[in-house]
Parts: sequence; structure tokens; C-alpha cells
Amino acid sequence: MTDLGIAIERMEQLKESIDIGYLCICAAFVLLMQVGFAFLEGGCLRYKDMQSIMLKIFMNTCVTIVIWWIVGYGIAFGSDSKEFVGSSVYIGFDMKNSKHLAEFAFQTAVASAATSIVSGGAAGRMTYIGYFILSVVFSSVIYPFCAHWGFGNGWLMKLGYHDYAGSGTIHASAGMGALMTTMLLKPRNQRFNPKYAEHFEPNNPIYITLACLSLWVCWCFFNGGSSLGIADGASVFMSRAIMNTFIAGASGALTVFFIFYLMNIDQTNRYSLVMICNGNLAGLVAITGPCDNVDAWAAFVIGILGGMMMVFANRVLFNLQIDDPVDAISIHFACGMLGANLVSWFDMDTGIVYGKGGYQFAVQMLGSFIYIGWSALIHLITLLFIDKIGFLRVTLEEEYEGLDLATMGCCAYEMVEQQQ
Amino acid sequence: MTDLGIAIERMEQLKESIDIGYLCICAAFVLLMQVGFAFLEGGCLRYKDMQSIMLKIFMNTCVTIVIWWIVGYGIAFGSDSKEFVGSSVYIGFDMKNSKHLAEFAFQTAVASAATSIVSGGAAGRMTYIGYFILSVVFSSVIYPFCAHWGFGNGWLMKLGYHDYAGSGTIHASAGMGALMTTMLLKPRNQRFNPKYAEHFEPNNPIYITLACLSLWVCWCFFNGGSSLGIADGASVFMSRAIMNTFIAGASGALTVFFIFYLMNIDQTNRYSLVMICNGNLAGLVAITGPCDNVDAWAAFVIGILGGMMMVFANRVLFNLQIDDPVDAISIHFACGMLGANLVSWFDMDTGIVYGKGGYQFAVQMLGSFIYIGWSALIHLITLLFIDKIGFLRVTLEEEYEGLDLATMGCCAYEMVEQQQ
Amino acid sequence: MTDLGIAIERMEQLKESIDIGYLCICAAFVLLMQVGFAFLEGGCLRYKDMQSIMLKIFMNTCVTIVIWWIVGYGIAFGSDSKEFVGSSVYIGFDMKNSKHLAEFAFQTAVASAATSIVSGGAAGRMTYIGYFILSVVFSSVIYPFCAHWGFGNGWLMKLGYHDYAGSGTIHASAGMGALMTTMLLKPRNQRFNPKYAEHFEPNNPIYITLACLSLWVCWCFFNGGSSLGIADGASVFMSRAIMNTFIAGASGALTVFFIFYLMNIDQTNRYSLVMICNGNLAGLVAITGPCDNVDAWAAFVIGILGGMMMVFANRVLFNLQIDDPVDAISIHFACGMLGANLVSWFDMDTGIVYGKGGYQFAVQMLGSFIYIGWSALIHLITLLFIDKIGFLRVTLEEEYEGLDLATMGCCAYEMVEQQQ
Repeated sequence: MTDLGIAIERMEQLKESIDIGYLCICAAFVLLMQVGFAFLEGGCLRYKDMQSIMLKIFMNTCVTIVIWWIVGYGIAFGSDSKEFVGSSVYIGFDMKNSKHLAEFAFQTAVASAATSIVSGGAAGRMTYIGYFILSVVFSSVIYPFCAHWGFGNGWLMKLGYHDYAGSGTIHASAGMGALMTTMLLKPRNQRFNPKYAEHFEPNNPIYITLACLSLWVCWCFFNGGSSLGIADGASVFMSRAIMNTFIAGASGALTVFFIFYLMNIDQTNRYSLVMICNGNLAGLVAITGPCDNVDAWAAFVIGILGGMMMVFANRVLFNLQIDDPVDAISIHFACGMLGANLVSWFDMDTGIVYGKGGYQFAVQMLGSFIYIGWSALIHLITLLFIDKIGFLRVTLEEEYEGLDLATMGCCAYEMVEQQQ
Repeated sequence: MTDLGIAIERMEQLKESIDIGYLCICAAFVLLMQVGFAFLEGGCLRYKDMQSIMLKIFMNTCVTIVIWWIVGYGIAFGSDSKEFVGSSVYIGFDMKNSKHLAEFAFQTAVASAATSIVSGGAAGRMTYIGYFILSVVFSSVIYPFCAHWGFGNGWLMKLGYHDYAGSGTIHASAGMGALMTTMLLKPRNQRFNPKYAEHFEPNNPIYITLACLSLWVCWCFFNGGSSLGIADGASVFMSRAIMNTFIAGASGALTVFFIFYLMNIDQTNRYSLVMICNGNLAGLVAITGPCDNVDAWAAFVIGILGGMMMVFANRVLFNLQIDDPVDAISIHFACGMLGANLVSWFDMDTGIVYGKGGYQFAVQMLGSFIYIGWSALIHLITLLFIDKIGFLRVTLEEEYEGLDLATMGCCAYEMVEQQQ
Repeated sequence: MTDLGIAIERMEQLKESIDIGYLCICAAFVLLMQVGFAFLEGGCLRYKDMQSIMLKIFMNTCVTIVIWWIVGYGIAFGSDSKEFVGSSVYIGFDMKNSKHLAEFAFQTAVASAATSIVSGGAAGRMTYIGYFILSVVFSSVIYPFCAHWGFGNGWLMKLGYHDYAGSGTIHASAGMGALMTTMLLKPRNQRFNPKYAEHFEPNNPIYITLACLSLWVCWCFFNGGSSLGIADGASVFMSRAIMNTFIAGASGALTVFFIFYLMNIDQTNRYSLVMICNGNLAGLVAITGPCDNVDAWAAFVIGILGGMMMVFANRVLFNLQIDDPVDAISIHFACGMLGANLVSWFDMDTGIVYGKGGYQFAVQMLGSFIYIGWSALIHLITLLFIDKIGFLRVTLEEEYEGLDLATMGCCAYEMVEQQQ
């Protein structure tokens, strides 16, 4: 009996080790999403601004890691958590056991991804200093509270808000950040002058493809890793999350691809590599929230709805003359809101299509609007402050010259004669 | 005793969770092979067709996932499988336990990789609609049956056919698809006119390098993942598969590199980044079948033989004026056939070099020829149908202009003046 | 009791399987570092030499794998190891159990990464044959002994030398190889002629970004994998290693970014994508040795010190007119020496800041100097031999034309008119 007790204890230790190992692997591949964001946003911009966005993304990744070590992780996942804010593990204190270390790595990587979504709104015209300040605020205030409420045993979670890997908690709130940023920055010069329309086409669809396919793979770890382990039944949520991530990504991509084909039936650009990528991402954002507990057919439908939403939001933004340089708003904000609310329709336990869901519907609606409201408010305050101290927008000369040459003194890649 | 029973049951659950976790990780990195295929094929083509092949690969990935959810996985791995065809888990039905979910993800990713191999034959001159149809047929009919016979407890498997990760089942059958496609499409215009020879050189060796090194890494999960888990002794096959994947990839690369060096002794292009990549892939394809049960020295030899086969097949195809734009046929078809048949020579339990193998030799030969015969037949029917409905080949104008500009209205990347 | 014994034995087998699975995953992602090195070094060089360095890295990867199978792994980790050299598992003999197979894969991937560091010194002017010889010597003699002494139960390890994932054992010794190589090769023609200064700027910061972010992710497996497993308490070292890899990478990047900003306050290139990348790598190299047993705040400080050291070393090398084309020396040599010695300051058990460490300080100093002395000596002998047989440096014409065109007959990527 004592021997058996020891054996069982060892097995429990082994279980924990396995969860930690799995979480560390997921953490590394969620960090790899920064490659995806850098190449996605770099490829979408004009060639002359490509480095500037990559620098912003690299910078916000580093800022988020440092900030999350200092305060972010404590606010979001502090173990003595209160409903509104966590209150331990600040500056890495009390992180004595390895589960905490692994969770820190995973959640910090997730927070970095969230921060990179905001960078889309800052593309091509925001100063580095201004964006640096915005990243600090986003990763120390805006996102940690979102994470605490929805993931860290906070009040929304206790109300029953269900958003597995964060369509609302992450994508809608960060996408709202991109929207606020791009609105306060105003459009890039001549953006909506039809004469220059093709100057604003994505400069490198190849990079967008690299980014999108990489992100799809990393998304498996983003969604799958949200089980925070595989032992004790968690593996069923993990494996379902990954299967649904495959299916919704595929159906989203095909949907947008065919919509674009039908919209451009008489033109030479009926086919589009960029559109199949955007549709893929739209499907992925929409499935992020419901991925753990919907059936495969629902994932298929959610991907299609995500793709349609993305095209719709893109058209609306264009008509409103809101400059969304990297489609961050139509992908992350619009499809994030969609995904957070589709939980109440398709969840196998609480969904409306299964004859349940009045309460779930209300709470998902409440949660998603709380997130975008909170994000909009703090972003607005921060951006007005940045404007006031003069670090919001670069000069017209810098924008015209391109941020790369104006601020870094070199272009992204050019096969200049470097003879000698 | 009862307590012990509970503990043992929990351990069995833990084992299953671990296998699922491992399989999900492998699934994600087999999906990452699409980045490899996109950049490999994109880099091999002419600059003006680069996006078109990436679009085809992205499209076939999404098509395969959707089709495998609907019928492919059921045909191949349906749990009530008959010897010729599986008969359950269609449209995701009956996929109640998480092992099925994880296996679906892994096998679907493998099927996507197989489909992408076929795209090589469609490079630079096939219409998207035609290729879409071909992808649907390949992923719903051609490959699922191959998979069922060789992997899914079908008749070849029961005969003793051994092809661990699929040199024959996957690479030879998909490579035969590329061969049929390229033959029915006929060569690209002026392909074999010596005057234009250098127009058909790979346009971007850097992308080929990125692709090949990434594929090598993903191949570890492709081969290693074919153990479908790590518990209960599976880890020995997994770790041997990965070690052999390292060694055969290296010996294949060095072989082709030195052969090319010796073939071009008096020329300025004695060294070739592309050739070391192609040799690497040749070695990887050849080891795919035997990787689980051959010794390291055999993996070394198999890599060398794969490299030699690739160079030989490449020369034969060129002399026969068969246009193999991305070397899909010389790598996947030729080295796939080689690998499937080398099992009967080097397998530690049944191999001829260990004094056994008359039966194994016959069954490997049978299996590999069945695969290429089946693949050739269905591809032929499908391609003749596509030709009949007029979607086989693009117009000469579109080909001359380049598929990117003609069908997408934009080039892959150009550092044009996007001033203003 | 017997039943319990069987259950415990099975659990031990499961533990081993898990360690093997984890190690195989790490092995694959350490192999992926070759993508990072290829794009890092390719992006740092001139456009006209880009393929040549990638070819060298691909070649040295394959050479290392083959050599490690034959002798390297036996010297370094032979199971009947003596203090100076291992004496078993040569040519893969005796590698009967799967733990050995997985460790072979992991350690071989690590050795490949070490070899690629040396290639930095050979950039842009060394012949392929010469570099081939150097790679053979490095992977069969230089590094395996380093690994045996510090990792494989050798004399330094027994003295108490602690260098978890190898700041000294790997980075300092390989970085010293790059230093010796670059010094014996002499600078590239006109390297220090101020008139041509901008010809030697990194040609592709985008590739450097891709490389650096990928390397950061792979570094998690490089450092985390050095636990060689996760069971039986290893998970705490693994998860701490990964957390510290996040933090030191971030603080290193931000440090160099701001130093560069302050150094160029009045110039148009105050911001630099390349510098944030180099700082990131500097922090990663510095944390490699101490990552398992330092606190998060120490990782933060070590990253900062690494960044400062990198900038300092870079300035010193430039003033000494030592041509360090890819910053291999200032990153790997300088920060590797730093990291190996910072163990004795920050280690939670033996560090000086915790009031301990006289002995540890001495042994870390001894170990790191032994490594660079050994590496310098054998590199010197090898390079003098290569010089004597005439394979050290390419001709001035080849260098002027660019190694790509001169030796491969083609450029890396150019969007030439490939019409027809």
C-alpha cells in the first residue's frame, strides 16, 4: 500500500512533467508566430516601409516579454487572483514550481502575439517611440486585464464566458487596438486617391504566403496549447482544437478565394494568393474561441462565416476610408468578434443549435463587448497622450521617402551593385 | 488490488494522452511541409510563374483537408476497414475519441503533402480549375485507397508489404501523378529549345534552400510520426526513424553535390546549392519507406543510392524531353520506387542482405507497382476528362506573359517605385 | 506486489519513452537552426556571395551528421567514456537502445549548429574544398573533445565546470574557430576602405529577421533540450531554461537597439532592424550556459550584459581591422566567453552574487580558456595545412565577381527577364 502510494505519487509527478513539456513546446511555437506576423505585415505594406513594421514587431515582442515578467503575468494569472486583477507572481516572484515557469513562457508568447496584432494599425506612419509607448501600455494594462477576466479565473470566466483560445479576449481586443490606432493616425497619404490605388497593393505576396502557412501551423499550438497540458482528459480538447484548426482554416481560405473569384469575374486578377491567405487567417481567428468544443462540421461552417465576415469588413472599412494596411481589423477584430459569439451557437454543450444557449448567448455578447470597449478606451487615452507629446505620426517627408530609408538609412533588400 | 487496478488504468489513459500529444505535434509539422513545397516549387520555376504554383499548393492543402474530413479519412482509415476500402468515420462521424481526432489531423496533413507533390507536374501551364479538379480526385480517390492498402490494414499490408512512412504509398504514387500530369500537359513552350535553356533554370535558389532545410526538419515528424505514438515500444521506431532521416538526408545531399561537381568539372557552375538540396530530398524520399527498421549504415547507403537515382532519373527525363519543372518526378517517383524496394534489401528482420527476403522482395515489388499503376490509371482518366472540358492548359499568351501577371494581375515581388 | 512491480516497470518504460520523444522533437528543431544560420549569414553578406555561404552551411550540416555517426558521437558521448575521450558507439555500433538513437540525433544537431558558427569566418572568400576540410576537422576533432570534456562526463565536468547548453563548450569554441578562420583568411578586399564601407552593409535585413526570430524559437529547444528529457525532475530545468531564453533574448535585443540608437543620435540610421537582431542573439548566446539555474532577474541582466559585450566586441574587431562578416565573433565568441563565466556569478547554487563561488569562478575561467585555447590551436594547424595545399582563399577575380556567379554560374535571385 505504501509502495503503491509512492508509485501513484510518481505518476502524478510524471503527469505534471508531461504537461510542462507540452506547454514549453507550445510556448516556443507561439513565439514563432512573430515570424508570421513580421512577414504577413511586411508583405502587405509598401516595399519602402517593410523593415519598419518588422522592427516594430520585434520590438513589441521584446517589450511584452520584459513587461510580462514584471507585471503582466502577475495581473493576468497571479495565483491569488481576485476577480478583477491577479495579485502575485510579479517580477517573477513566487514562480517556484516549474508549472508556473512553463505557463509564464506560454502566456507570454500569447501576449506577444496579441501585441503584434496591434502593430498592424501602426504600419507605415507611426513613430517608433510612440509605438514603443503603446506596446508598453498594451502589454502591461490592456491585455493582462483581458486575460485575467477571461482566462485567469476572473469575473467573466466566473459568469461562464467561454472563449477557449481567445477570439474575443485576444483577437477582438487587439484588433480593436489596431482600429483605434489606425483611426487616430489617419490614413496614409493618398491612400484613398484612386490614382495611386495600386501603390498600396501588398508588395510581396510570397512573404504573405510564408507567413500565413507558418501561422497556421503555430495556430495549432496556440489553440491546442490552451488546454495547458495533455494529461487527465485535456488531450481530447487539445486534439479537437487542432482538428478544428485544420478544418476552419481550410474552409475559410476556400471561401474567400471563391468570393474574390466571383467578385472579379471579368478582370485579370480573378485569382489571388493574398486572398486565399486572408481567408485562411479569417477562419483561424473565428475558430480560436470555439475550437475546443465544437464538432468538425461546425468548424467547417465557422471557417466559412469567418471568411465572409472578413470580406464584408474589408469592404466596409474601405468605404469608410479607414486605412487598414495589413487587414488587421477585418481579420482580427471582425472575425474575433464573430468567433467569440459563435461559441454560443455551436458549442456542443451550450450552443443554440443544440437547443440551448440563451444564457451563453448573452454572456458571450457581454464579454466580447466588454473586451472591445475596454480596449478602445485605454487605446484612445494612450494614443491621445502620444499625440500630445508629439510622437504619433512621422513627418510627411519621412512617409514619402519610406520609413526604411528615412529612419534606418537602408532598404529592405535590393540587389544593388555592391561590387568591390 | 482495486487501487492498483485504478492506478494502472490511469497509466493507460496517460499513455494514450501522450500518444495523442505526440501525434498532434507531428500533425502540425507535417502541415508545415506545405511551406517547404511552396518555396521549393516556387524557387524552381520561372519568376513569372512563382505565385501560381504557391496558389495551387495552398489550394490543394485546403481541398485535401476538407475532402479528407468528408470521405478521405473514412476510405483510408475507417475503423471497420475492409481489405479494399474503409467504411466508417465519413464526414467526421464516429470520431468520438481523441485518438481518432489526432490521427485524423496527422493523416490529413500527410495526405496534403502527397497532394502537393502532384502539383509539381502542373507547374507553369495548368489552369487553376483543372488543378482544383485533379486535387479533389487525388485526395478523395487516388491517395485514400493507396493509404488504406498500405497503412490502413488493407490487403497489401496483410500480404506483408512494409513501407513505414510511405516511399511507395505516398511518394511513388504522387510522383507518378506528377509524371502523368506533366506528360499530358506537354512541356512548357520552348522548354527544350537549347537557345532558351537558361530561362528554365531555377529562379530562386535561396527559396529552395529555405524549403529543403525546412522539409528535412518536417520529415523527422513525417517519418517519426508514422509510429503514431511513443508509448509501448513505439519510441524505438520513432527514434530510429529520426536518426536515419538525419543520416540518409546527409548522404544523399553529399552524393548529388559531388556527382554534379564531377559532371561539370570544367565549367563555372561546378558548385550548386540547388543540387545539394535535391540530393538531400532524394535521400529523404528513399529512406521514408525503410526508416523504421534499417541500421544507420544502411540509411547511409540508401541516401547515396537515392542521390544517384535522382541524378539518373533527371537525365533520362531530360533526354526523353519530359518537362519536370520542379524535379518532382526524379525525386518523388524515382526515389520513392527505390525506397519501397530497398526495404526488402536492408530491413533488419526481412532484408536480403541479412540472408532473408525472397518473399519480402516480391511483395515490395508488387506493392510499389500496384501503387504506380493505380495512380497512373486514375490520373489518366481524370486528366483526359479535364482536357475534354477545356481546363487542362492555359493559353500560350498567358504562359508567355507568366501566370502571375496573366491570372493574378501582379508579380511575386518587385521593388517597383511605389512612391506616394 | 508482483503486479505492482510490473506496473512500476511499465511506468519506467513510459518515462523513458517520454524522454526519447521529447529529445527527438528537440533534435529536429535544433536541426532547424541551420535555416537560421543560412539566412542570418546570407543576409549579412553582400548579395553576390549569398549562395556561397548557404552552400557552406548546408555542406557542413551534412558533413557533421556523417562524421558524428562515424566518430564524433563516439568521442563525445561514448558510453565507456574516459575523462579525455569516449570510447564506444563509433560508426553507430552498440547504439542498441532508443535513448542512444535519440541522443545521437539531438547531439548531432547541436554539433551541426556549432559547425555552422565557424562558417561565418569563411564567408565570402574561402574555397569550398578548404571549408570542407575544415568542417571535417571541426566535427571530428575540435568539437567532439569539447563536448566530451564539458557534457560527456569528461574531466572538466568532473572538476565541476557547469555550462548547461554550452556558452563556452559550443559558442566560445566555435566562435574562436570563426576568429582564427577570418584572421588567417585576411579581410575581404577593400573591407576597411572607408570609400566602400556601405558595400559591406548587410544586404538583406529581412532575411536576418527571419533567421533571428527562427533561431530564438529553436534556441528554446537547444537550451531546453539540454535536460535530455523531462521526467524525474528534469522538467524544472527545461522550463526554467525556456523562460530564461525568452527573457535574456528580449533584454539583449532591447539593449543593443537602444545603444545603437544613442550612438547614432544625429544620423538617419538611428533605428536598426539588424541591431535588434544581433542584440537578441547576443543575449541568447550569453544565457546558453547559465540558463538552467539562474533566476529570471539574472537572465534579464545577463541579456543586457550580452548585448553590451556584443557592441563592444564589434567595435574592437573593427578597430583591429579584423573582418567579421557575419558578426560571428562578436556574438558567439565574445558572448559565449561571457556566458560561460557568468555562471559563476549568477548560478543560484554556486554563484558569487549568492555569496559563493570562489571555486566555481576558477573552474569556469579554466574551462572557457581551455576551450578557446584548444579550438585556436587545432584551427590554426588545420588552416595552415589548407593554406599549404592551396585551398584557403579564392582568387581576387572570383571575389570581385562574387562567389555565386564565379563558382555557381548564377545569382541568388534576380527577377531577370525569363521571357519565353
